[in-house]
Amino acid sequence: MISNRKIEHVEICLYEGVEGFTSTLLDNVVLVHKAMPEISFNDIITKTKFFNKDISAPLMVTGMTGGTADLGKINETIASVVEELGLAMGVGSQRIAIENSSAEESFKIVRKVAPSSPIIANIGAPQLTKGYGVKELEKAVSMIEADAIAIHLNPAQEIFQPEGEPDYSKEILEKLKDISKSLKVPIIIKETGTGISMETAILFSKYGFKNFDVSGQGGTSWIAVEMIRDKRKGNWKEQSASLFADWGIPTAASIVETRYSVPDSFIIGSGGIRNGLDVARAIALGSDIGGMASPVLKRAVEGKDSLKSFFNKTIFELKAAMMLTGSKDIEELKKTNIVIWKDLKDWMGSRGISLSIYDKLRKRE
Amino acid sequence: MISNRKIEHVEICLYEGVEGFTSTLLDNVVLVHKAMPEISFNDIITKTKFFNKDISAPLMVTGMTGGTADLGKINETIASVVEELGLAMGVGSQRIAIENSSAEESFKIVRKVAPSSPIIANIGAPQLTKGYGVKELEKAVSMIEADAIAIHLNPAQEIFQPEGEPDYSKEILEKLKDISKSLKVPIIIKETGTGISMETAILFSKYGFKNFDVSGQGGTSWIAVEMIRDKRKGNWKEQSASLFADWGIPTAASIVETRYSVPDSFIIGSGGIRNGLDVARAIALGSDIGGMASPVLKRAVEGKDSLKSFFNKTIFELKAAMMLTGSKDIEELKKTNIVIWKDLKDWMGSRGISLSIYDKLRKRE
Amino acid sequence: MISNRKIEHVEICLYEGVEGFTSTLLDNVVLVHKAMPEISFNDIITKTKFFNKDISAPLMVTGMTGGTADLGKINETIASVVEELGLAMGVGSQRIAIENSSAEESFKIVRKVAPSSPIIANIGAPQLTKGYGVKELEKAVSMIEADAIAIHLNPAQEIFQPEGEPDYSKEILEKLKDISKSLKVPIIIKETGTGISMETAILFSKYGFKNFDVSGQGGTSWIAVEMIRDKRKGNWKEQSASLFADWGIPTAASIVETRYSVPDSFIIGSGGIRNGLDVARAIALGSDIGGMASPVLKRAVEGKDSLKSFFNKTIFELKAAMMLTGSKDIEELKKTNIVIWKDLKDWMGSRGISLSIYDKLRKRE
Amino acid sequence: MISNRKIEHVEICLYEGVEGFTSTLLDNVVLVHKAMPEISFNDIITKTKFFNKDISAPLMVTGMTGGTADLGKINETIASVVEELGLAMGVGSQRIAIENSSAEESFKIVRKVAPSSPIIANIGAPQLTKGYGVKELEKAVSMIEADAIAIHLNPAQEIFQPEGEPDYSKEILEKLKDISKSLKVPIIIKETGTGISMETAILFSKYGFKNFDVSGQGGTSWIAVEMIRDKRKGNWKEQSASLFADWGIPTAASIVETRYSVPDSFIIGSGGIRNGLDVARAIALGSDIGGMASPVLKRAVEGKDSLKSFFNKTIFELKAAMMLTGSKDIEELKKTNIVIWKDLKDWMGSRGISLSIYDKLRKRE
Ligand SMILES: Cc1cc2nc3c(=O)[nH]c(=O)nc-3n(C[C@H](O)[C@H](O)[C@H](O)COP(=O)(O)O)c2cc1C
Ligand SMILES: Cc1cc2nc3c(=O)[nH]c(=O)nc-3n(C[C@H](O)[C@H](O)[C@H](O)COP(=O)(O)O)c2cc1C
Ligand SMILES: Cc1cc2nc3c(=O)[nH]c(=O)nc-3n(C[C@H](O)[C@H](O)[C@H](O)COP(=O)(O)O)c2cc1C
Ligand SMILES: Cc1cc2nc3c(=O)[nH]c(=O)nc-3n(C[C@H](O)[C@H](O)[C@H](O)COP(=O)(O)O)c2cc1C
Repeated sequence: MISNRKIEHVEICLYEGVEGFTSTLLDNVVLVHKAMPEISFNDIITKTKFFNKDISAPLMVTGMTGGTADLGKINETIASVVEELGLAMGVGSQRIAIENSSAEESFKIVRKVAPSSPIIANIGAPQLTKGYGVKELEKAVSMIEADAIAIHLNPAQEIFQPEGEPDYSKEILEKLKDISKSLKVPIIIKETGTGISMETAILFSKYGFKNFDVSGQGGTSWIAVEMIRDKRKGNWKEQSASLFADWGIPTAASIVETRYSVPDSFIIGSGGIRNGLDVARAIALGSDIGGMASPVLKRAVEGKDSLKSFFNKTIFELKAAMMLTGSKDIEELKKTNIVIWKDLKDWMGSRGISLSIYDKLRKRE
Repeated sequence: MISNRKIEHVEICLYEGVEGFTSTLLDNVVLVHKAMPEISFNDIITKTKFFNKDISAPLMVTGMTGGTADLGKINETIASVVEELGLAMGVGSQRIAIENSSAEESFKIVRKVAPSSPIIANIGAPQLTKGYGVKELEKAVSMIEADAIAIHLNPAQEIFQPEGEPDYSKEILEKLKDISKSLKVPIIIKETGTGISMETAILFSKYGFKNFDVSGQGGTSWIAVEMIRDKRKGNWKEQSASLFADWGIPTAASIVETRYSVPDSFIIGSGGIRNGLDVARAIALGSDIGGMASPVLKRAVEGKDSLKSFFNKTIFELKAAMMLTGSKDIEELKKTNIVIWKDLKDWMGSRGISLSIYDKLRKRE
Repeated sequence: MISNRKIEHVEICLYEGVEGFTSTLLDNVVLVHKAMPEISFNDIITKTKFFNKDISAPLMVTGMTGGTADLGKINETIASVVEELGLAMGVGSQRIAIENSSAEESFKIVRKVAPSSPIIANIGAPQLTKGYGVKELEKAVSMIEADAIAIHLNPAQEIFQPEGEPDYSKEILEKLKDISKSLKVPIIIKETGTGISMETAILFSKYGFKNFDVSGQGGTSWIAVEMIRDKRKGNWKEQSASLFADWGIPTAASIVETRYSVPDSFIIGSGGIRNGLDVARAIALGSDIGGMASPVLKRAVEGKDSLKSFFNKTIFELKAAMMLTGSKDIEELKKTNIVIWKDLKDWMGSRGISLSIYDKLRKRE
Repeated sequence: MISNRKIEHVEICLYEGVEGFTSTLLDNVVLVHKAMPEISFNDIITKTKFFNKDISAPLMVTGMTGGTADLGKINETIASVVEELGLAMGVGSQRIAIENSSAEESFKIVRKVAPSSPIIANIGAPQLTKGYGVKELEKAVSMIEADAIAIHLNPAQEIFQPEGEPDYSKEILEKLKDISKSLKVPIIIKETGTGISMETAILFSKYGFKNFDVSGQGGTSWIAVEMIRDKRKGNWKEQSASLFADWGIPTAASIVETRYSVPDSFIIGSGGIRNGLDVARAIALGSDIGGMASPVLKRAVEGKDSLKSFFNKTIFELKAAMMLTGSKDIEELKKTNIVIWKDLKDWMGSRGISLSIYDKLRKRE
């Protein structure tokens, strides 16, 4: 049943047009052109750190799938390209494999074909209210010899899904804190398309968590995904889901809020990242690396070549943006000058975030 | 004659598309998403106080109808659903029943089927210039054993209606003050679709009135209603009514102006409230409860089941917004963080209302 | 030849759609609704002073026509309605009648049918560089027993008209100052659709002139009128005229700039005033009265009844705005609270005009 | 091969619609209308200095072409009209003629037909990383007895062109500084459609270069040109080029950034300048003269008459703007008052450029 739902999710994300209802506001960030870059394209270095490993470019595939043979194939495709290109990858929720060992293989394949890449395990926060503890998380990690584990937050999806049981009670935080003490790998706090806010970032940082995958609004909308499932089932929640389709924090705002409120956090800028220019903007705005889900899925089902070309094009675009801002490496890209205007500027103003103070923070000055 | 007019009003509101010409500006209020809500959906409490009674959700039906048997049916439908769900309800102007006792039954039915709900009586302010006094208001209250009485203000409608006699002279205020001394129930100052401004709120508060039903611009436009009646009668005012169709204070601005200028007021946020997300925004922005007229009418004529589903959906949406802002009850919703941007921000700026000072006021800090 | 040109101008203004290319920005001024106006519609007084006479409403017809028998008819129609309703009126440029006495009758008719109304004479500023002096201006005044004379400024039109001779040399100012010493009536400095700026208002005030008919951008565009004439003549200036079609100062900005820089000026708010709500906004924003040209012309050619209805509707709309802002007379309308937002706010900001300081100035506090 | 590419470039610029994807933001600059200009059209003087020579109007044709007989014809047409009207002109990149003497004639023709005009030589900055030194630059200058030499910067184009070798390493700056010591003519730092930023202007000024041809975004897009060439060749870069089509600094922002950061620079305002009003705005905003490429090319291929009419119309429009701002010469135009609003205002705000401080700088106060 969980696996059926996952298959339906993948199918809806592939064929039903559930992204881009709202803007990430990343286009309210202008990377300031440097006509005299003082570098040569071939000297640009995109390499960066992702936890303890090096990755060739600041890019990860955020968690999506696993659970059945077919979904395992998708994982395999992604993992092998990620390994070849030196990127990082998260797997989809491993709940199914924890509850049913026959599903493990579709996750294990990832580590098999990507022995050296950073691989991220994945469990939903609500599982912690349903008995999951250190044992289950360790199992998820060891299943794929993960470098870190993402705890995903999806309250919006839970509310609007036909079978949703939205329970995000406070005990999750305490439990997570306890687990983190014995867990061997770092924990990433991961949203799933509605974004991390200042309040949320501060809350987690108080419990000792400072790795965030912001997954803001503007890319895949999980409220829209469930709206389609409501519709298919004739569920009355469809209309309400449609009303909330623009709920959330735009990705650009989410990056700003997180960097501003937890300056020393590690930030994966994600949600609606679609090309290398988006990656560059996300990083200049305050992220450490960029993350993508849906666009990767779309190429993965077309095969390894398609996915590889896509990543190569993305990295070329990132390098183009680095060249044209005179950034010879990712650290310089983080410090490049930007213009923040239009709605993003207003969002920051309303949240009391001064442009000039933020400028120092995003540059880690 | 008054009853014919009321029937025509109801018919126009139902079938002529007289709402939503302008924006309530409630969509310039973003409720900040909390990815980790620290609550469970089932623990959310929407209960609140409405004068001396409890209501199950912060929602009232604002005054609309009564006067004939048919209109009494509508009142009965609304009242019985309101009673079942634990909400509150206002009746339409009772002038007709005060002047003609045969019309009383269509109002009395409300209290009959809703014995425990807060029920609000209704009289137009202009009647006070035409001889109405404590006797008439007491009659309106006792007719339905009302918990409060709304004095409605509709100068814009009066100006553009074919038979309008726009008289809002100062004596209304003095008279109302006198009446309030002997009246057993509280008085609500109620607009009808063009909103309460800072100046108006302050004026009434000086006379001791601090309960406001703001009924701002963006929902049913009574100028548009009268424009259609002018057109039907070939009255030259039609063009002028059309020119003024966007006159008024957007609901969001009206809530802000009222809360800002009379911080301890009780505010019914209304005018263009169409779903539970609107209710949540109105409350987070500074209202105590939300109010709806036209959308309730539309379901009421379809029957009790339709209206009940509508309210249930609305409350579900309100709870969704509460969950996603981590608000376990209405008091927390009032204190949740919001982004105010675009036109609403500019409106406030031009009126000298600082975002940060207002933030404290709306949170009642 | 001048008369032919005037006939062509009138024809183009009537039939070629040369208004409203740009916004007056008057819709960036919101008159704040007062739900409790504390007045009765019938007690509203629209009367005001216009130089030494009373007018029944703050409205004048700004100068347009005269010169031939047909154009005299238009003048007669306007004048007789203006007299009946107690308004004010300007005539079109009297140059033709000064140079050719057979054209006088088409102007004199105005005073004949409007013996008691304020009537304004009209001469173009460029005539002062071509030999006109006190004699010519006195002739213009005495021809219609004028209460004042408008000196119109039309450099934009002169540049783009096929036969234009744009000469606005400094001597105009000195000459005008000299003339003003002997002239019996006050001088109004009048634009013709591109607006008076701060710099211009200050310049004239230094020479002692403080009556302005701002005639800003957003109504009839004289650059567009000449563009059509260029096109008809195959003149290459057509394209350039089209490029400049949005040149000028929007009426709302022009009113603000004039009131701000010359606080004690008398201001006729004009250029794109089309109804009573525009008049109300222009006055609340800082004008003393409103002025209209093209919409009056359009009704005048339909006959007296049409024009009379138009004025009555306009005055009704003005009174509606006064009622809904609780302004019992024009002095109160000048002090009513307004919201200035969007482009007009930005314009003021860029010109260094603070909203709060301006608020005091426009209220004459 | 270089000449084939140049021909393709010219053809694409002429026929493929590669301009105006984004706005120059010059329409966010309002020249404030002066109703009383205090000048006569005939007295307006557009003459200005361009290095050591006088030009009749503040207008140059920026570098475009040369290399083959056909392209030489275009150069000849432009040069002869420029000479006749007293304007200035740059030639296209002379690399081809430096590497192949048979191409020289197509450049030399310019000086032949324009013996007295300021003529600007042109070499791409990347050539300096490929062995070019003082010898090659002197050759370029002497080839056309140039009055100055433009070193063009085109990193964006290099990245997206199929055969691009984007190398802009730091040595360029040092080399250029050395060369400037022995070179007889001044050097202009010239962009090619993506604009000079504050950082770039400061960088060059530190090396002693203060003449800038900003060539900002909003006119010809060289990224779009290469996108079309990628498409024709089936090169995968096409999509990435399309993504970057709006990369760069809008011309208006570029003028502001350059004037602000290097107040005593000489600025050619270019990129999307299409008429005399654009020239006037560019100058009032902070440029010394305006520059155009593509619109000149389009008329040049139609013949001398077409080009001459175009320039005459442009100068007429410039004079119209001067008249209507009361600017009798270019120095006064530089000091005329302007309104900066909308996106340009926001851009400046985000870059920390205060409107009032900039106002003094642009006026050279
Ligand atoms: C098909 C699909 C399945 C997903 N499943 C998971 C999941 O199991 N766990 C998780 O944390 N996020 C999941 N996500 C969310 C993504 O990781 C990501 O946060 C979100 O889609 C926004 O990124 P995007 O706009 O690039 O798609 C899934 C996304 C997609 C498209
Ligand atoms: C059919 C109808 C009749 C109404 N009659 C009254 C009335 O008698 N008294 C009153 O105070 N408001 C009356 N109203 C106004 C509503 O209470 C409310 O203020 C207004 O319609 C804006 O809310 P809405 O946008 O939710 O409709 C009426 C509204 C409707 C739609
Ligand atoms: C047909 C016509 C003729 C005009 N002739 C004159 C004139 O002779 N003198 C003058 O000062 N203004 C003249 N004007 C300008 C008007 O007085 C007014 O300033 C301008 O039209 C803007 O107002 P509007 O938008 O209400 O038309 C004329 C306007 C029109 C429509
Ligand atoms: C056909 C064509 C060829 C060009 N070739 C050169 C060149 O060789 N060197 C150079 O510095 N700029 C070159 N440019 C760029 C222009 O000088 C100018 O910077 C740019 O086109 C933006 O101006 P515009 O919008 O007026 O076209 C060329 C432009 C065009 C249209």
